[in-house]
Amino acid sequence: MTAPKRLKVGIAGLGVVGGGLLALAARPDGPLSQAIEIVGVSARSRSRARAVDISGLAWFDSPSDLAAVEGLDVLVELMGGSDGPAKHAVETALRRGVAVVTANKALLAEHGQELATLAEQNRAALRYEAAVAGGVPVIKVLREGLAANQVTAVAGVLNGTCNYILTRMEASGAPFGDVLADAQRLGYAEADPTFDVGGFDAGHKLSILAALCFGGAPNFKSVRIEGIAALEPVDIAAARDLGRRIKLVGRARLVNDRLEQVVRPELLARDHPLAGLEGALNAVMIDAAPVGRITLVGPGAGAGPTASAVAADLIDLAHGGARPVFASAHSRFVSRPTAEDGGEGRFYVRLRVRDRPGVIAAVSDVLAHHGVSIETFSQKAVEDAARVPIVLTTQTVAEKALRAALAEIAGLEAVVELPCLIKIDA
Amino acid sequence: MTAPKRLKVGIAGLGVVGGGLLALAARPDGPLSQAIEIVGVSARSRSRARAVDISGLAWFDSPSDLAAVEGLDVLVELMGGSDGPAKHAVETALRRGVAVVTANKALLAEHGQELATLAEQNRAALRYEAAVAGGVPVIKVLREGLAANQVTAVAGVLNGTCNYILTRMEASGAPFGDVLADAQRLGYAEADPTFDVGGFDAGHKLSILAALCFGGAPNFKSVRIEGIAALEPVDIAAARDLGRRIKLVGRARLVNDRLEQVVRPELLARDHPLAGLEGALNAVMIDAAPVGRITLVGPGAGAGPTASAVAADLIDLAHGGARPVFASAHSRFVSRPTAEDGGEGRFYVRLRVRDRPGVIAAVSDVLAHHGVSIETFSQKAVEDAARVPIVLTTQTVAEKALRAALAEIAGLEAVVELPCLIKIDA
Repeated sequence: MTAPKRLKVGIAGLGVVGGGLLALAARPDGPLSQAIEIVGVSARSRSRARAVDISGLAWFDSPSDLAAVEGLDVLVELMGGSDGPAKHAVETALRRGVAVVTANKALLAEHGQELATLAEQNRAALRYEAAVAGGVPVIKVLREGLAANQVTAVAGVLNGTCNYILTRMEASGAPFGDVLADAQRLGYAEADPTFDVGGFDAGHKLSILAALCFGGAPNFKSVRIEGIAALEPVDIAAARDLGRRIKLVGRARLVNDRLEQVVRPELLARDHPLAGLEGALNAVMIDAAPVGRITLVGPGAGAGPTASAVAADLIDLAHGGARPVFASAHSRFVSRPTAEDGGEGRFYVRLRVRDRPGVIAAVSDVLAHHGVSIETFSQKAVEDAARVPIVLTTQTVAEKALRAALAEIAGLEAVVELPCLIKIDA
Repeated sequence: MTAPKRLKVGIAGLGVVGGGLLALAARPDGPLSQAIEIVGVSARSRSRARAVDISGLAWFDSPSDLAAVEGLDVLVELMGGSDGPAKHAVETALRRGVAVVTANKALLAEHGQELATLAEQNRAALRYEAAVAGGVPVIKVLREGLAANQVTAVAGVLNGTCNYILTRMEASGAPFGDVLADAQRLGYAEADPTFDVGGFDAGHKLSILAALCFGGAPNFKSVRIEGIAALEPVDIAAARDLGRRIKLVGRARLVNDRLEQVVRPELLARDHPLAGLEGALNAVMIDAAPVGRITLVGPGAGAGPTASAVAADLIDLAHGGARPVFASAHSRFVSRPTAEDGGEGRFYVRLRVRDRPGVIAAVSDVLAHHGVSIETFSQKAVEDAARVPIVLTTQTVAEKALRAALAEIAGLEAVVELPCLIKIDA
């Protein structure tokens, strides 16, 4: 057992995660400080107040200049953003054969194919444990721990902000907007929350997981994405009445050799492995042969968890051993067509109607006409006779047929808003 | 990214796991067959009927002869047993600098110190992902995924046989002996079940986890072990009344720099990460800084899951990269004293008494005399007036004081059997 090589590392980006990493590296005799030596840092502002003293570290105004430092072994990219300076710095490093460790899911999801190719051509490692599920080492588990397996499906609760909001909506009964505002005050949601609550962040992460599971580059464009902003307290309460919880779930699998990637709210049964997840936790559930089902749960964001993942990548690099960026060399990437939308399932539908005779009959007629069978139907207590919520669940139907029916229902004169549709997990 | 070296591998032991591994290796173009070439096998009987054809493989009557084959890269040891031929074959391989991959928890738990030393001295890898929690890659997660963390506590449901029996006792209300007999018929329990239901197997696994978490060699001798054979349907029902479930939990942590390792049944709250575990699943919950809490769940035994773990170790070896056997080089092993028994906690106590006046008062007196405060107390419906179950839960007490009180209570004339004590998770 030879001592690992001490790597010369540059850190680009000194926000929450960069600060967490500096704090970890500052522990003398800690495993990270045994593995790396920080030779330079770069961030937007040199003078900003920071918890860790950076005055002893070489400063670079440009992350790409840091990536070009002579003798650099690893660039740690913690800036974020799928393009611009982060991409440029990463490319600069890889072109020089310098390894890259990044937490940047957007970058990998949007440009995974070209970055994997660049990394391979220059024999540079590209590692990204922190990009998916924060402190949960799911990339390592998929790529190494389950290396001998064939993954059949992967599903996860991949966005802590959404899970926090849904958990709070359940606990408080408050509407989405109020809970979001609270989450923003507490630092659980960004000032512009679209990226999280719109499901895009979860979509980025899902596309990276799918690349590892099914052997291609990340294909973010083909992810079907629906966020949580349309969910209302009446949906949360109805889910509870059904013995279920609403979670924003990302799922990827192959359907007739086509890749299906979907991020959407789902009604999960209470004993589903992802249903019990509280607050800002993340979870990933992997179905694979011959292992069976493995579920991983842990903190999906924050300085400590994310720095833990970045540090694991760095310590791995110090110990040596090479793995491809995704599941295989880029020449062996499988490019799969996108699965058709939908398929079959049971669904939850909530509509709001003006309370007058004949409305329910009209709605039922349209559903029947499209071949949609209703399993449960309830009209909720009337808060406002002009906006009466109706909640129904369907038997197993083709999602396409249901969506066609709902489009027609949305056009009925008595229906006062677009119907909300949520998938019910089997 | 260079292609990994194809390793010459010998497999000693062709039972359930060995068969699963051969099946995995037989998939042409599979990741395992790309990583290894099987150059020989050894097992107790050459002629026994097997699902996989071994006629094309070189046969060795002695596993140690297989370990001594010229040019061998890895010995896979799947025989089991802490001593005897398994130990001899592993030592033979390591002495020659041949890597060892093993699923043998007893061997590592009992002889981890000397085997790690031998491996290191001969620069041979010793890997054992399959030894703990079957298909769940917890060794990799601890050693690599959380490499930058300081683990503060580890807890797990580590024996699938026990969890299966407890789950069946809950579902059926049947007594331990009946459920065990069923489990034996279905292959979930061995003909001699002591090793599993006595908690010894979980103790072996816990000592391996503790070595990785706290930086020493496995110290099986210091594990406090209690099994599940004393549990009765009345306990399962009482747990349910308390809103809890009984699980056999292994826990390790440092208490004032002493190592505490305990395997015992616990009453877990229903929302505890380990409480939801059904059937033969395993789970490990790791508390570490800076990451927080990570929980891993999956199948703890069986041909597929265990072969998946063995194969992951083999593929890792093919990719190169060296790690110490446990958390550090053996010269840096920390030898920690064992924590004192007990400490404080809340407990569940069940006794059986002859139904006559004054019994409850006598029991209460003894408890009060030892400073044990009762939180709930109930006398269960009388099946048999000569053996009336009394169930009580305590407030937080020193376990020592409670055990002293119970020893005295066991001596009361009206008490007809030894009291059963179960820890209540906080």
